[in-house]
Amino acid sequence: MGQQEIKVAIVGATGYTGGELVRLLLQHPKVQIAALLRLSSEEAMPLSKAHPHLRGLTELDCVPYDEALLEGVDAAFLAVPNGVAMDLAPKLLEKGIKVIDLSADFRFRNAETYEKWYRKTHTAQNLLSESVYGVPELHREKIRKARLVANPGCYPISALLALSPLLRRRLIQLDSIVIDSKSGVSGAGRSQLEVGYLFTELDEDFRAYGVAGHRHTPEMEQEFSALVGEPIRITFTPHLVPMVRGIFTTAYAKLIEPMSTSDVHALYAEDYADEPFVRVLDAGELPRVKAVVGSNFCDVSVFIDERTQKVIALSVIDNLVKGASGNAVQCFNLMFGLDERIGLWQGGLAP
Amino acid sequence: MGQQEIKVAIVGATGYTGGELVRLLLQHPKVQIAALLRLSSEEAMPLSKAHPHLRGLTELDCVPYDEALLEGVDAAFLAVPNGVAMDLAPKLLEKGIKVIDLSADFRFRNAETYEKWYRKTHTAQNLLSESVYGVPELHREKIRKARLVANPGCYPISALLALSPLLRRRLIQLDSIVIDSKSGVSGAGRSQLEVGYLFTELDEDFRAYGVAGHRHTPEMEQEFSALVGEPIRITFTPHLVPMVRGIFTTAYAKLIEPMSTSDVHALYAEDYADEPFVRVLDAGELPRVKAVVGSNFCDVSVFIDERTQKVIALSVIDNLVKGASGNAVQCFNLMFGLDERIGLWQGGLAP
Amino acid sequence: MGQQEIKVAIVGATGYTGGELVRLLLQHPKVQIAALLRLSSEEAMPLSKAHPHLRGLTELDCVPYDEALLEGVDAAFLAVPNGVAMDLAPKLLEKGIKVIDLSADFRFRNAETYEKWYRKTHTAQNLLSESVYGVPELHREKIRKARLVANPGCYPISALLALSPLLRRRLIQLDSIVIDSKSGVSGAGRSQLEVGYLFTELDEDFRAYGVAGHRHTPEMEQEFSALVGEPIRITFTPHLVPMVRGIFTTAYAKLIEPMSTSDVHALYAEDYADEPFVRVLDAGELPRVKAVVGSNFCDVSVFIDERTQKVIALSVIDNLVKGASGNAVQCFNLMFGLDERIGLWQGGLAP
Amino acid sequence: MGQQEIKVAIVGATGYTGGELVRLLLQHPKVQIAALLRLSSEEAMPLSKAHPHLRGLTELDCVPYDEALLEGVDAAFLAVPNGVAMDLAPKLLEKGIKVIDLSADFRFRNAETYEKWYRKTHTAQNLLSESVYGVPELHREKIRKARLVANPGCYPISALLALSPLLRRRLIQLDSIVIDSKSGVSGAGRSQLEVGYLFTELDEDFRAYGVAGHRHTPEMEQEFSALVGEPIRITFTPHLVPMVRGIFTTAYAKLIEPMSTSDVHALYAEDYADEPFVRVLDAGELPRVKAVVGSNFCDVSVFIDERTQKVIALSVIDNLVKGASGNAVQCFNLMFGLDERIGLWQGGLAP
Repeated sequence: MGQQEIKVAIVGATGYTGGELVRLLLQHPKVQIAALLRLSSEEAMPLSKAHPHLRGLTELDCVPYDEALLEGVDAAFLAVPNGVAMDLAPKLLEKGIKVIDLSADFRFRNAETYEKWYRKTHTAQNLLSESVYGVPELHREKIRKARLVANPGCYPISALLALSPLLRRRLIQLDSIVIDSKSGVSGAGRSQLEVGYLFTELDEDFRAYGVAGHRHTPEMEQEFSALVGEPIRITFTPHLVPMVRGIFTTAYAKLIEPMSTSDVHALYAEDYADEPFVRVLDAGELPRVKAVVGSNFCDVSVFIDERTQKVIALSVIDNLVKGASGNAVQCFNLMFGLDERIGLWQGGLAP
Repeated sequence: MGQQEIKVAIVGATGYTGGELVRLLLQHPKVQIAALLRLSSEEAMPLSKAHPHLRGLTELDCVPYDEALLEGVDAAFLAVPNGVAMDLAPKLLEKGIKVIDLSADFRFRNAETYEKWYRKTHTAQNLLSESVYGVPELHREKIRKARLVANPGCYPISALLALSPLLRRRLIQLDSIVIDSKSGVSGAGRSQLEVGYLFTELDEDFRAYGVAGHRHTPEMEQEFSALVGEPIRITFTPHLVPMVRGIFTTAYAKLIEPMSTSDVHALYAEDYADEPFVRVLDAGELPRVKAVVGSNFCDVSVFIDERTQKVIALSVIDNLVKGASGNAVQCFNLMFGLDERIGLWQGGLAP
Repeated sequence: MGQQEIKVAIVGATGYTGGELVRLLLQHPKVQIAALLRLSSEEAMPLSKAHPHLRGLTELDCVPYDEALLEGVDAAFLAVPNGVAMDLAPKLLEKGIKVIDLSADFRFRNAETYEKWYRKTHTAQNLLSESVYGVPELHREKIRKARLVANPGCYPISALLALSPLLRRRLIQLDSIVIDSKSGVSGAGRSQLEVGYLFTELDEDFRAYGVAGHRHTPEMEQEFSALVGEPIRITFTPHLVPMVRGIFTTAYAKLIEPMSTSDVHALYAEDYADEPFVRVLDAGELPRVKAVVGSNFCDVSVFIDERTQKVIALSVIDNLVKGASGNAVQCFNLMFGLDERIGLWQGGLAP
Repeated sequence: MGQQEIKVAIVGATGYTGGELVRLLLQHPKVQIAALLRLSSEEAMPLSKAHPHLRGLTELDCVPYDEALLEGVDAAFLAVPNGVAMDLAPKLLEKGIKVIDLSADFRFRNAETYEKWYRKTHTAQNLLSESVYGVPELHREKIRKARLVANPGCYPISALLALSPLLRRRLIQLDSIVIDSKSGVSGAGRSQLEVGYLFTELDEDFRAYGVAGHRHTPEMEQEFSALVGEPIRITFTPHLVPMVRGIFTTAYAKLIEPMSTSDVHALYAEDYADEPFVRVLDAGELPRVKAVVGSNFCDVSVFIDERTQKVIALSVIDNLVKGASGNAVQCFNLMFGLDERIGLWQGGLAP
């Protein structure tokens, strides 16, 4: 393909999601990584220092952000803190660069929701109606045409893939939804230098956090509400698991009409039949984080507790892949008219 | 009590809960361990082979069960598989030996429930009305007078301590209860020689199991129902966390009337004010497994999600201590008129 | 190579090294996996049951070994227990199938050494002189021409890459070599259903095993001796680390003549300058297992303790990749005239 | 015992070794904890915030150091950074308070060695000849009479207990000693807020650090030299294991005269026959970290590699107990004429 390679830049390349973008894009046959950038306030850093596992695979260093380095770039991945992407994206789009933003800045249709939950003034509100929420399984056609994709939060994508077959058919009581999610620690990123993230504090521990107030709640509510066509409120509790990668979501809701496990399983199988990265397990089979670590797959399973008529939907993803960088590459493939599996079509790492 | 130490036997001393009983009772100032027993079908094993961490602390070997070894014993702890205790307990009681059974055999008031969920015929049904369900926080006075205590399941005790202040006041909708529990792997015991329990399979993994059908469900339902005075059905999902010890329970229910976090916190503080081993955290504080590993404490916390009027109650225990052997010793103390803290009044092991 | 893809069979596809072979070969652009086999005594198993992480990536099941399934196959990878490969290899070679054996059966020049350490009679001794010890960094040209490659043990390859620059130059006292290696648990494989390999027993534990008698000792001695040109005996101690993958080898030896760290570092840099998969770290830099997990790289580092004139050479590999299946694919590439990086040229998975 | 309780203060109570001192001393029947102190520059902190596992076991807060708080105190444990104890100890001794210092400040007979390796000027050199190196197994009588005990480094005590039977009999070549140690992460303490100590960076990783230059090297050399009566230099390499607690030391040396494993085992058994906290394993048995976690035991094992005439001595300790706070309490017991097992005589926590 040679000169027709798509040139991409990664902003925030030294973090964990940045590292995953580099790892995935280095093996993407249609991509040339043109620049690895950090925030303009940060110092240059050799890639092998930021990501020793990628030593020797590229000559590029991670250098401070500078617009001049983006000349000729076709797409930019923004793996930056919330509040930064809204500054960068408008300029990039003006230069004709397509943007896949992994932060929360462009996920909300409603700037007020963002401002309330993220406690920041949104400075690029005009782009909110244009940006596409990057879940290929829900918004594939819009993503294909988008200039700006807001890659979803890791918890929301796991919850959406677990519940969308039920939501879009309105099979569940809308005030009964509980999302109980369990995440590996890499979701906290690399720059959280707090005692609570030390190995000694997390190993052999299990905790909840952000109870009744995590910022991924309104993001789920926006997308759940869109699926059912009316406003929904949910209860969401995230937990930290002593492992590096993975999100396991256990979603609960009350059925409106009685159904059996095989009934709902059939709906899931139908909805996801053509989805390359959603694997509906056999009826009765349970998902495991280890089956998706390192890959872009989401494994989904659904059960009816016949004694209580509650549905229990379970999903697993690698939070850094389908929950972040892999899904971003999947969106990128769609935006550039490629088969969405390119660069992503491989198994995870197990055991 | 001096030279009148209470003589105890531990049946099933080579398993994990057996090992915890030995560890705790070796440092119990009022106890003399008279015999360490295995099932009669098993071979003798030096304690240092079964439990290298206890090497040098006692001369006793673990020997096959033989009634002759129980002469003069005051109490027996049964850390045996379900179905074995119902054979042993009647004979022990006949000899005047008090029994603390850590299996499920005597937990149910109703033999049918046991037989349905455990798929065994109950051969000592006459003892079911006498046996006391061993949660000191709920049944302290009955335990004091009991000859036979059924130590609760690890998940049920964590759920009961999380929800009892709400249940006994009927503040929640009875069909809305979801118990989402996460357990360390030691709950599976030591004899589960299956591929799924190998280190390589569980490390960096997270799974659910027993979805919509775990055997601790009817046990919770029995005790929840007793607290509210009418039959309740719940949805319970256990999960396996890549850590050795600990259970973290996140319990959800819908409030009947609006309440604030501080309202419900006050009820918890009131109910548990005099409980030595239940620590109600400060309002807004979150529990961690690491705070209870190795100790008999249960840390409890409660929140109201004001947006959905759901209550989220959280509890942590060490599944082998408050969830098994420690709670059994606490019951033992009560049965013998001792301060229930004796032998248990110490902090866990952290970090 | 297009439609002339090389057809390969994997025997022992349901184990951990088998799974890695499948994972790597599925993404190898020149390979078609023709058959996934188990031992003839084992039952057929869907790949998604043996390796849930590979679900959906191939339609093949793992079926019992049957020669008929090998028609038209160009190469066979044997990921089978020691003692099985010596039965299979002669027949495969007769059919014109090239063999890469991951067991120990063809690693020794001397059948007696094998028989003494592995306690098995060798039934294909005539192939021992022909088989090539599969370390590309030492025997690249022979591997290119081989019909039968004996893939090295995981510990020996880590020790060889750590010490070969010193051995081939005879810079160290030959009776002073100590190899202290630390391995992730996956090296034990999946079929070791013993209490000692349960999660509960290994998590938060660290052990030595096979002290003064591990079977990789004579394999190291054979190759070390070949490098220096005279018989060497070494002391080797393996240890188990509570992690799934990775080998960290710390090798010690006494220098014959004084040297500085930068002196020896220069030799390593020289020897490995053109090696695609050996990364000599900068002088003073230390290797980490996490930098190689999931990849075929070996990171190497060397220090002189100037106070004692001991050299300390450190290497890290992923035991299932460079220590097994990845290295086997590298040998395969050489045997079929391919660039040895094909299918392997990617970073590991971190964090 | 009542009013004759010994009053102790713990300085540095909010760190990991400080927390272990509190945990152990709270259950010490002859001790009353009079004060929990931090550095004078730090803020007061409730104990339950520093150590949630100790919530409810004492009313004491951790308050900034102030001499007034030490009135009436009999002994002070200093769990402070290197360089702080040399300031505090002289004043405490002047007040008649016995001091057990867990830092490195009083471990060296020779101030120059300290100043070279720790890069600090020693301001209390006059106390170096008086302070006793706190290994009860080597210096019990001196400890009994000491006012000032320097609790040993975690690695040195593990190496000393592994090798002292050989050293004091001069059975090994003095220039052949290699100490390869593997430590849990808690040895790094709680205040090391660096990326390298995050859970995500250490979990599933294994690393060496301080190669050919760790500060515990001269401490081992001082004590090894004292045992053999002439100066020794050793090679010492510490490694980080992804677990919280434990040190596993593999020590290598060349025998001067041929010996068998049972010969050396007999010497170990003899030397440690009366040591309460050193457990010599049966000949051929291998130590495990999990057997000592949470306890003050050191398990020791020794092997001869008959093929190379190297001795391989292995020891395990809990770095925070026998490697720090537990050993400090053992020394304290000796200093106050108590049975040295008091407060420490219990098994560790396993599994």
